[in-house]
Amino acid sequence: MRISELSRRSGVSIPTIKYYLRDGLLPPGRATAANQADYDDSHLRRLRLIRSLIGVRGLSVSATRDVLAAVDKQRENVHLLLGLVLGILPADRGGEPEGSTQADDTSAPAGADADADVSGLSEVAALTAEMGWKTSPHTPAAQVVAETLETLRALGVDYDWRSLLPYAELADRTAALDLDQLADASDPLQQAERAVLLTVLLEPALLALRRLAQEHHSAQRYGGG
Amino acid sequence: MRISELSRRSGVSIPTIKYYLRDGLLPPGRATAANQADYDDSHLRRLRLIRSLIGVRGLSVSATRDVLAAVDKQRENVHLLLGLVLGILPADRGGEPEGSTQADDTSAPAGADADADVSGLSEVAALTAEMGWKTSPHTPAAQVVAETLETLRALGVDYDWRSLLPYAELADRTAALDLDQLADASDPLQQAERAVLLTVLLEPALLALRRLAQEHHSAQRYGGG
Repeated sequence: MRISELSRRSGVSIPTIKYYLRDGLLPPGRATAANQADYDDSHLRRLRLIRSLIGVRGLSVSATRDVLAAVDKQRENVHLLLGLVLGILPADRGGEPEGSTQADDTSAPAGADADADVSGLSEVAALTAEMGWKTSPHTPAAQVVAETLETLRALGVDYDWRSLLPYAELADRTAALDLDQLADASDPLQQAERAVLLTVLLEPALLALRRLAQEHHSAQRYGGG
Repeated sequence: MRISELSRRSGVSIPTIKYYLRDGLLPPGRATAANQADYDDSHLRRLRLIRSLIGVRGLSVSATRDVLAAVDKQRENVHLLLGLVLGILPADRGGEPEGSTQADDTSAPAGADADADVSGLSEVAALTAEMGWKTSPHTPAAQVVAETLETLRALGVDYDWRSLLPYAELADRTAALDLDQLADASDPLQQAERAVLLTVLLEPALLALRRLAQEHHSAQRYGGG
């Protein structure tokens, strides 16, 4: 297809596509004339993934380049691919040679202030062990859970990892739904794009559904007037 | 108790307490001497609620004053109280005389650009009807769900309210857990404070639990290496 069709089908403007081509985010098309090139579905899928990383996940062009470079090395490993595009695996590790890119190996970021969160992170480890989840111990998500527990306690709420267990059960079922929705994608890059869209864009909607359900349950328990 | 103990037990500094007193957010204590006053548990509970509205929900002092004024009129109605502190009910409606403060009455905000979201909002109405939820039709939460559906479709993902139904089932169970955790609060203001803390502070943690569970499920389905 010509660049105009690539633009129409991807929703990315021609000047932006040209910028990605110059910048190396998108590989060149097959030259058909002096100033013309032909693009195929692989360009379209890659462009859609770029759009989801920049426009939805909010990555910079430079961070997107790192993620794509890592993605190119892990094209056959869907688990690592999803970890890369969702930011569970850091791109600078995911891009390393085979053997050092195991999920369990993405441990503490260099220079992390480990002491500050030891108690919270060990609680997250207890929670994930209880759930039977095999997860990397120092991901941003683990940090967020640890910090939440510490913040609630600092504000005087009696809360520990066991309080989160019923929420973790529901999160487990939510994630199973998420993965179901990726199963029908035909190509790893398309799957990666859907993972970014459905994970990131559904976040505010999931919280909003909780608010709607809270309103309903509150009316049921306390009378809606 | 003296102001120093009030400060210690609430975690709010003495100068900030004095500011809230001058500003009318906190009612004066009982004067015991020329420059001294005695505060009781009602001051402590109110101060904790103020802290959660400003420090956790991120409201301005002026918006907090509106919410507290509405809360004072709705002290007996826990459902409206929770709606007010969580922002489901706008404070300027919640503060109106009895009879016009029904949850179902907080309809479209004045001047809302109704046309833009008609399709999305009617889908939210279909979703809440299917769930048996009685919710106000134009809350911020309903808008967020409507916008998410529209954004996903604009990005080429085939998605409608039925796709969200299984997520809504899980949100329903999440909200039931949330309400369970308020049940043991002894006082409506304490309940309101816990509602703000547990609803708002758990938001990032719930999304993080989803990410952790996604990592686990992805490893299970695609092999974690």
